[in-house]
Amino acid sequence: MKKTILRKYARLIAETGVNVQKGQDVFIVAGLDQPDFVRMVAEECYKLGAARVVVDWDYQPLAKVDNKFCSVETLGTLTNYQKARWDYYVEKIPCRIYLDSDDPDGLRGIDQDKMLKIQQMRYPQIKAYRDKLENRYQWCIAAVPGPAWAKKLFPELSKRQAMEKLWEAILATSRVTEDPVAAWEEHNADLSARCAHLNSLGIETLHYTASNGTDFTVGMIPEAEFKGGGDTSLQGIFFNPNIPTEECFISPKRGRAEGIVYASMPLSREGQLIEDFWIRFREGKAVEWHAEKNNQLLTNIITADEGAAYLGECALVPFDSPIQNTGLLFYNTLFDENAACHLALGMGFADTIRGFEEKSLEECRALGVNDSMIHVDFMIGTPDLSIDAVTRDGKTVPIFRNGNWAF
Amino acid sequence: MKKTILRKYARLIAETGVNVQKGQDVFIVAGLDQPDFVRMVAEECYKLGAARVVVDWDYQPLAKVDNKFCSVETLGTLTNYQKARWDYYVEKIPCRIYLDSDDPDGLRGIDQDKMLKIQQMRYPQIKAYRDKLENRYQWCIAAVPGPAWAKKLFPELSKRQAMEKLWEAILATSRVTEDPVAAWEEHNADLSARCAHLNSLGIETLHYTASNGTDFTVGMIPEAEFKGGGDTSLQGIFFNPNIPTEECFISPKRGRAEGIVYASMPLSREGQLIEDFWIRFREGKAVEWHAEKNNQLLTNIITADEGAAYLGECALVPFDSPIQNTGLLFYNTLFDENAACHLALGMGFADTIRGFEEKSLEECRALGVNDSMIHVDFMIGTPDLSIDAVTRDGKTVPIFRNGNWAF
Repeated sequence: MKKTILRKYARLIAETGVNVQKGQDVFIVAGLDQPDFVRMVAEECYKLGAARVVVDWDYQPLAKVDNKFCSVETLGTLTNYQKARWDYYVEKIPCRIYLDSDDPDGLRGIDQDKMLKIQQMRYPQIKAYRDKLENRYQWCIAAVPGPAWAKKLFPELSKRQAMEKLWEAILATSRVTEDPVAAWEEHNADLSARCAHLNSLGIETLHYTASNGTDFTVGMIPEAEFKGGGDTSLQGIFFNPNIPTEECFISPKRGRAEGIVYASMPLSREGQLIEDFWIRFREGKAVEWHAEKNNQLLTNIITADEGAAYLGECALVPFDSPIQNTGLLFYNTLFDENAACHLALGMGFADTIRGFEEKSLEECRALGVNDSMIHVDFMIGTPDLSIDAVTRDGKTVPIFRNGNWAF
Repeated sequence: MKKTILRKYARLIAETGVNVQKGQDVFIVAGLDQPDFVRMVAEECYKLGAARVVVDWDYQPLAKVDNKFCSVETLGTLTNYQKARWDYYVEKIPCRIYLDSDDPDGLRGIDQDKMLKIQQMRYPQIKAYRDKLENRYQWCIAAVPGPAWAKKLFPELSKRQAMEKLWEAILATSRVTEDPVAAWEEHNADLSARCAHLNSLGIETLHYTASNGTDFTVGMIPEAEFKGGGDTSLQGIFFNPNIPTEECFISPKRGRAEGIVYASMPLSREGQLIEDFWIRFREGKAVEWHAEKNNQLLTNIITADEGAAYLGECALVPFDSPIQNTGLLFYNTLFDENAACHLALGMGFADTIRGFEEKSLEECRALGVNDSMIHVDFMIGTPDLSIDAVTRDGKTVPIFRNGNWAF
């Protein structure tokens, strides 16, 4: 890929993505696959005035080795220096950038039970820090090609060609045009107008139907609002947490979901695909489910903790989206969740509550925002999906017809 | 390179190199060039019983970016989480492995003055930790090929071929034979016998002469002894800090060095080569010096702090060494210092003092072991180097003739 276009992408991540402020620190998590691009991102952060850019390189195969040889106790316990890192985040509120290039199958064969136990042991130690950081910092997840990921998408091409093709797909769906910063301003304006319309309706429930069997109703929190595109941190800084993003999303009301949803795409999780699955909800909770493939992994997700069986997100994405239009399954949530309407099990977003800046996290959760250590998106959008809103004043308003916006 | 031979090399580093003990942590610093080999080293450490292996990936171009954009204050100040890391080292005494693959020219163009200021600012913050760790932990520096380093040695070859050639050179000089662990036992026995003989002589001074103009006398500390090959930590664990190693070394007496030494090989430093240089010592101190190329860099080394102008090491390596015999200048101290006799400016090694286990660091330094934030080796061995020892009972004993051992 040409350096000039990569430089634009790096700038997009630093400026539109995390929107680095003068004197801020930036922490980047990146795989080993595109070091030169990571360097460019660091440079663009510095040019915007970053005080210090720290890169935490992440090599997926080592996670697998650690999982195999370390005890749950060892991996599940935060060391003092890891705690000191979290303290630093809470004190300095640095920007966080995640550049994902992982092999979707990279964790295949890992001991899932052990992984879950480690996660369950670590989470309570991290939770206090996470709660203190929630909505306070700018962050951005974006993608860069890794060889295994590229070959997964384009198995018939050489490694070099596959990498190039994946760069093209990432850059196109991430709106890396001649002037990506301007393209994102326009895109944000569109998403913002959609959300404004949705928020003007006073929606009480959304009712989903599709020919695959989906027949599902989810309740809204009256105080919640749809959000999409950029976000504003509690420090008042506008940033774009996902590159790309196509969704208008909201946190639904914990305890209000009835009926059955059929997944419309496989869910790539821990290096494996959960395929052909459905979940039935009663009083907001997943009470029954089945996957034709990797059902145990689905069960692990839904039973990870008490909140994992409840919904944390409900996102509207037209089927005619740039990502869907590539015709690719990316095996990566960042892309696949922006290809179609989706729901997420687990943690909801407190910042979807109007005036959340003035509220405590506990108040937001009391209104119905779900809490969990997990947040797992799964796709339910199909070409024939219909969504109707029933408003608080009793009207029925079409939201989606034939998989796309009805307004 | 074949996986089977790389696996042997990984094992050599874990077993013979740091000699991981059951339940110990291991911290590895590695470039991004050979992730699969790093994974093998981690696996071998785990197989020996490591509790946790942590890899700190290091990408040299980022150091250059940081140096360009960060303030001296930012880079010169240890953050709390960095201090917590040092605390962890002091508490847990983990093994430390450094896998070097850096481009010898990678830091070319960096602001040297700024780098020195940063180092001078950081050092006092790190010194207390370093003193607490000195001689207590097992560590090992070994090398793996990086593309820029390989092309520097073999500019006429393709990148792939150059990498392969550099693997061959590294593995051959590191004694990665059919049974590398056994080969290292034999090599250690030989070095140990050489040291025993040197230590039996009661050497007061060593006198170096060569046709290039070197005419130099350095004084020994009566309590010091030559060491070579493996070392034993204060915890009583035998390890091999350098792979490869060919030297018998000692810390000379601070304040006792007279005459002039001519470097016999370029000194690769901060991505640049200091070439054709000499240093004149008076009362142990470098008082005059000149390099035909990069004299300023040589001046920066010698004037880095008060101890930098004094000698910390004096090492004997036969000219007929496996590394010299490759005919390669590696542009890497680990190899080049083991190709010929060398001296080092800066910090001396307290563990060359007999019975140092019972002594404090201060006592060792009071005997004449130099202290400094730097330790920079430079080569003085030539094919015609002669070294004579003058012993405390007044005898003159030949140590080197024609660049090789005289005994």
